[in-house]
Amino acid sequence: MFITFEGGEGSGKSTAIKHLVNFLKENGYEVVLTREPGGTPISEEIRKVILEKQNTDMDPWTEALLYAAARRQHVVEKILPALKKHQIVLSDRYLDSSLAYQGGARELGIDEVLKINEVATGGLLPDLTILFDLDPNNGLKRIADNERREVNRLDLEKISFHQKVRASFLELAKRYPERYVIIDASKNENEVYEEVLSAVKNVLRRR
Amino acid sequence: MFITFEGGEGSGKSTAIKHLVNFLKENGYEVVLTREPGGTPISEEIRKVILEKQNTDMDPWTEALLYAAARRQHVVEKILPALKKHQIVLSDRYLDSSLAYQGGARELGIDEVLKINEVATGGLLPDLTILFDLDPNNGLKRIADNERREVNRLDLEKISFHQKVRASFLELAKRYPERYVIIDASKNENEVYEEVLSAVKNVLRRR
Repeated sequence: MFITFEGGEGSGKSTAIKHLVNFLKENGYEVVLTREPGGTPISEEIRKVILEKQNTDMDPWTEALLYAAARRQHVVEKILPALKKHQIVLSDRYLDSSLAYQGGARELGIDEVLKINEVATGGLLPDLTILFDLDPNNGLKRIADNERREVNRLDLEKISFHQKVRASFLELAKRYPERYVIIDASKNENEVYEEVLSAVKNVLRRR
Repeated sequence: MFITFEGGEGSGKSTAIKHLVNFLKENGYEVVLTREPGGTPISEEIRKVILEKQNTDMDPWTEALLYAAARRQHVVEKILPALKKHQIVLSDRYLDSSLAYQGGARELGIDEVLKINEVATGGLLPDLTILFDLDPNNGLKRIADNERREVNRLDLEKISFHQKVRASFLELAKRYPERYVIIDASKNENEVYEEVLSAVKNVLRRR
């Protein structure tokens, strides 16, 4: 089973994922926790190029192609082998982040970005995508309050950019209702986690 | 005017390009000499990831997407602005290297690799592509004899890989006869340069 977590910056994804990993392990599941961009040594090298604060001249298509390159390596080297071993793969961001950030917010077009990602994913889609939906004003405030979290190139975008990201994720949820669950991430940590857990249990039950 | 130089490793491209740059400058042309992968700070960072000898696990599609990402930045930040200023752009490798190496030799398919490069090039094709055609046994021997040239991940491929690269370039020359000139790179340095010069003069005359 392949579960992805999507949403804007500061939406509380990481905290909820941490609790979920513990729950799944305690219940005897083998879990692989990973993230994008990154997840393999080559993808982490690509991540550095993407998120480097000095790379302000990066063209939107350069960025989209770099995300796709990192994703390809991630799928081939980490996600597919784990799925073959019947492990549960949890990924903090995947394909939909490219569609929302580059396709939607950078206005390259969701279908155009999907096209270059077809070779990257080899057609692999998540069984479940949990969207942490949150007003970006709220999310960015949380990041500013969190001293452990380093600010990267994407955090520095204007608020209107992050609003377009949010709208694009909601559009994707409509496009792929069969795998999307939307969570109101403005609720408190416990409530958010309960909704995540319930969505995951639903999918586990269907198997 | 946009001129690209293609061919296998050790085919004498760099030497001929150096002479050509001098000739063009002496004749009053403004020349921008560049190379792929690379040509801009971001593209050079991507180049490091691609050519790093330790990255032996790199998936062929990861490689193709990284080349496309580096190319996009190169086109937008360097090639197009120079062409707008009516400078002559000479690039040591461009799109056709991806088509021959990843599309042909790595067997991803020339049309498939062309597809992801459409967003990278934005449709920009060279006015002239000079192919330095050479038996790879000969080319790799030249690299081994050249102490100044560092060995990279692609040099370490088997001879059969380099033979497929050569065959793919010849196939591309047939596909794009309007912009391709094939040069027999087994000839001596002077003869090769004379052929390069004659091809460039032909294109200059047509303008």
